[in-house]
Amino acid sequence: MDSDFGAPRELSDLQKHRTLYEPEIPPCLQGTTVRVEFGDATSTADQSISHSFPHTYGQPLAHFLRATAQIPDAQVINEHPAVRVGAVFCGRQSPGGHNVVWGIHNALKLHNSNNVLLGFLGGSEGLFAQKTLEITDDVLASYKNQGGYDLLGRTKDQIKTTEQVNAALATCKALKLDGLVIIGGVTSNTDAAQLAETFAEAKCPTKVVGVPVTLNGDLRNQFVETNVGFDTICKVNSQLISNVCTDALSAEKYYYFIRLMGRTASHVALECTLQSHPNMVVLGEEVASSKLTLFDLTKQICDAVQARAEQDKNHGVILLPEGLVESIPEVYALLQEIHELHRQGVSIDNMSSNLSPWASALFEFLPPFIKKQLLLHPESDDSAQLSQIETEKLLADLVETEMTKRLKEGTYKGKKFNAICHFFGYQARGSLPSKFDCDYAYVLGHICYHILAAGLNGYMATVTNLKNPVNKWRCGAAPITAMMTVKRYSRGPGTSSIGKPAVHPAQVDLKGKAYELLRQNATKFLMDDVYRNPGPLQFDGAGADTKTVSLCVEDQDYMGRIKKLQEYLDKVRNIVKPGCSQDVLKAALSAMTSVTDILSIMSAPSSTGSTPV
Amino acid sequence: MDSDFGAPRELSDLQKHRTLYEPEIPPCLQGTTVRVEFGDATSTADQSISHSFPHTYGQPLAHFLRATAQIPDAQVINEHPAVRVGAVFCGRQSPGGHNVVWGIHNALKLHNSNNVLLGFLGGSEGLFAQKTLEITDDVLASYKNQGGYDLLGRTKDQIKTTEQVNAALATCKALKLDGLVIIGGVTSNTDAAQLAETFAEAKCPTKVVGVPVTLNGDLRNQFVETNVGFDTICKVNSQLISNVCTDALSAEKYYYFIRLMGRTASHVALECTLQSHPNMVVLGEEVASSKLTLFDLTKQICDAVQARAEQDKNHGVILLPEGLVESIPEVYALLQEIHELHRQGVSIDNMSSNLSPWASALFEFLPPFIKKQLLLHPESDDSAQLSQIETEKLLADLVETEMTKRLKEGTYKGKKFNAICHFFGYQARGSLPSKFDCDYAYVLGHICYHILAAGLNGYMATVTNLKNPVNKWRCGAAPITAMMTVKRYSRGPGTSSIGKPAVHPAQVDLKGKAYELLRQNATKFLMDDVYRNPGPLQFDGAGADTKTVSLCVEDQDYMGRIKKLQEYLDKVRNIVKPGCSQDVLKAALSAMTSVTDILSIMSAPSSTGSTPV
Repeated sequence: MDSDFGAPRELSDLQKHRTLYEPEIPPCLQGTTVRVEFGDATSTADQSISHSFPHTYGQPLAHFLRATAQIPDAQVINEHPAVRVGAVFCGRQSPGGHNVVWGIHNALKLHNSNNVLLGFLGGSEGLFAQKTLEITDDVLASYKNQGGYDLLGRTKDQIKTTEQVNAALATCKALKLDGLVIIGGVTSNTDAAQLAETFAEAKCPTKVVGVPVTLNGDLRNQFVETNVGFDTICKVNSQLISNVCTDALSAEKYYYFIRLMGRTASHVALECTLQSHPNMVVLGEEVASSKLTLFDLTKQICDAVQARAEQDKNHGVILLPEGLVESIPEVYALLQEIHELHRQGVSIDNMSSNLSPWASALFEFLPPFIKKQLLLHPESDDSAQLSQIETEKLLADLVETEMTKRLKEGTYKGKKFNAICHFFGYQARGSLPSKFDCDYAYVLGHICYHILAAGLNGYMATVTNLKNPVNKWRCGAAPITAMMTVKRYSRGPGTSSIGKPAVHPAQVDLKGKAYELLRQNATKFLMDDVYRNPGPLQFDGAGADTKTVSLCVEDQDYMGRIKKLQEYLDKVRNIVKPGCSQDVLKAALSAMTSVTDILSIMSAPSSTGSTPV
Repeated sequence: MDSDFGAPRELSDLQKHRTLYEPEIPPCLQGTTVRVEFGDATSTADQSISHSFPHTYGQPLAHFLRATAQIPDAQVINEHPAVRVGAVFCGRQSPGGHNVVWGIHNALKLHNSNNVLLGFLGGSEGLFAQKTLEITDDVLASYKNQGGYDLLGRTKDQIKTTEQVNAALATCKALKLDGLVIIGGVTSNTDAAQLAETFAEAKCPTKVVGVPVTLNGDLRNQFVETNVGFDTICKVNSQLISNVCTDALSAEKYYYFIRLMGRTASHVALECTLQSHPNMVVLGEEVASSKLTLFDLTKQICDAVQARAEQDKNHGVILLPEGLVESIPEVYALLQEIHELHRQGVSIDNMSSNLSPWASALFEFLPPFIKKQLLLHPESDDSAQLSQIETEKLLADLVETEMTKRLKEGTYKGKKFNAICHFFGYQARGSLPSKFDCDYAYVLGHICYHILAAGLNGYMATVTNLKNPVNKWRCGAAPITAMMTVKRYSRGPGTSSIGKPAVHPAQVDLKGKAYELLRQNATKFLMDDVYRNPGPLQFDGAGADTKTVSLCVEDQDYMGRIKKLQEYLDKVRNIVKPGCSQDVLKAALSAMTSVTDILSIMSAPSSTGSTPV
């Protein structure tokens, strides 16, 4: 009921205690004077993006610095006229979302007490219908550092159709908004970029800002190290996974198959594995890159069960990302056929008879419960309804059948295989956010204000150097278009199609350090039961300040490396000044020619476009 | 693998921090001198129990007091000859089990460094097979305050058959044990009482002690206020339920049906409801007492969904205890028929054709997945495999069908009903134990030593006054036989059978204060979404010292009330001494005659035996 939004509610002692927590803020955002430094214009590998975003493409990066920072080009923003800002939750709730709103509100009030923040009620539908709640200290009081999106609610994931975009435009005009903050993941930030472009084209003065908030942790790129909610989700899920590991080891009779929420990419599953050390994890990215079939996967798990049984271990814990099902080539192809039939309006009852012979053969082989789930209508972004497809039950079923067969044939001599299946998602999504997510979200909220004060449009708020303490965090903003890529789909020989520019979910990097850490330990995890329990999320004392393993092991300092490169260029410029020797000049010319040749070749748009998984 | 038991393992920072936590101990157990006071001989309502336990029935209660306590009859135990004690985990793992072992070990070493504690490996099977691990400080180091039973492992729930009892007797003799501590729930403590009697009969010097450790929280009676593990399980589950509530309120489109582990009684479900305030809970005890059918229940939930939809609320959270399915009269009767067919050796394929006509009609009506689950072989205690029967899916299915019907008929005008189902059990069972469970388990472990030092057999370690701080806890021991009851089954007119004496699971008291609290708030919970999140289990700071609501609201001071009564009797004795007036004597005689008459009638064995649910 709309009238319930933002209503005060009964809090537990711990919740009350958390409402009193004041998130930390890095030095550059403290006080009321912030300096903005603009970097070089941004670029993307794919030039076609510039055509789709003529007004917002190629804008420079922005860095927010202390007023006292010794950067000559940086400008101090002194004028803070009263502004009106709207904020909307888009897509799935992610722990920390409320703190983004709080951060915006706090920064707004700090700079001009006449500033106004309107929250849209019921997510994007509230945006279209101009339903708002003015955010005040009173409204925020019982939502500070709390989970969920229930302060404002949320509905659809997308602001995509012409009607929706026009409705959003009409709302921003009607409410005389100077800024619109969109809080969400890859899809919502793509929408934010599109809105920014449309608003600029329509000469609407509302600037659009995106904030990377998604438990999937898949809005990652050169500018964005992690997303609000990912830390909490991984901690809550790891606690539960570890509890199940302890359970497995205590009773020694069950294999637990646990599916984890996180959409197509396997970031949540990878992080939880690094925290809890379950026996096995099957990452979608591994399966896709090795083109493993359902039968390969079943065999792989069965072999693991057999190897453990030989060591008298008849229990185990296996993690599966929800996106796995789309990574298995033949299942993906089957899903594509089903979704195409949905688009053609074929009814569910007639689907199986309209499948291609080989897709039909696979479909008929599958157990009834999974058939029903595969036939569900796809999500608004054309992906399957991953949260509804019980891949863990499918694999447990297939493994059980195979182990029973091996037992009968005498090739397996262990105990009867028993599986218990779990899906961990909804029970983590509404958690109280971790200290990290509270701080990160709140700081991003503050940055949103500074982006708007600097008059920027189509930017995402960013914080880098996150693995270090908050006082070392670097605050900035990057044009969302600079994070976009275009997918080229090759469908059979000769045919290919080009997708729309979008911020695509980042896959787990199979060459990255987090994955390397997993590979190094995989055998030990599989055989030695080195289960580790990070324990329940702590807010005080031991464990309260831990960060995700994947954030800490990756060397993500992209901007630092760009700075390093610029220092090299400056050094060369200083050495090769009029008056330097001919030999030095010759050597410099030769070396730099070679460098530029190599880089030109490497950064040319590839003719062999990537086939998305 | 046996060689893994007690092995050191990799701990997370929080786990390491927890290993350093020193549980509190009440003043009476501090130091090495403890005074024991024996109360009156215990009694039971059912006299038949005395026949089954000639050696161990009717023993007095014991209270452990400070050495300096001013109780004239209490004796100080000064002699502490070296003893050998065995400890075994029986039945399902419950958070805190490891601390019982630690408590016994600590008390043993404190009183005589030559004392030995042997842990049985792999639970009761290790007891039968004489597989042990000597408990040392090194072995315990990484298991202190940690969850699970993986220090020693566990297997079967029961020590019941003649072979098993004889094997246990042989082990105790072979290992020259002075004491055997059985850590478990109602079934295991019944077994402990039986072993104690058998050992006494066989003149085996091993004394048997039971410890109330069960996440179900159903080993409750005049002497036992709560069980080790219940506090943790309710906190972990409440956190997850609350997260789901927040999720429901954020997206406003799902009804979550959550089934909770806890066996036949609904203590876990009631406690979690009082902590999290979900919209609805269906307690097995309510259903049994009101004799609600599956259709009544479905209708009740549908009416709730409809009432909420009229207030524009299309989401909700409904809790169901796993024991609910056995509380629904017609399903219980069906399960009884199936279990009888199992006993007759009828194969699963032939079961449905052997059911009575009306049981068959119900069976055929049910969806296939639940049929398969109902046909599972019963547990060793003859109850259904509750953890495997997806009651939440069954009810969600039935509600969905009914809501679709109402929608078509136009009697329901809300949005399409969408359910998501969960089973919360395994993911909580392996949790790090709460501070309360760490302390409670450790203190019980200490008490076990003092029971053995006092030479008692067939006792359970008890702590009362638990809702107060540890320094107010009262430590004691009660004969397990005093907690036993006998069930009288009436099967059809004229026929009845008498069960064996046993410690039966306590049902939720529908006249108790915890249930009263639920009833007072039920309408508010149902309609107003007053969700409350106790948050993740905390070990430091806010929330670390909270206790379960059911422990705190119940007035459980049974021994305190007995003491109060004895004070009244003493007062009467003092007033009515030779020399008092005739009138006073007359009044006292009249009043006391009336009191004793009433009490005699009330405590006579009832001829209308209770029919168990």
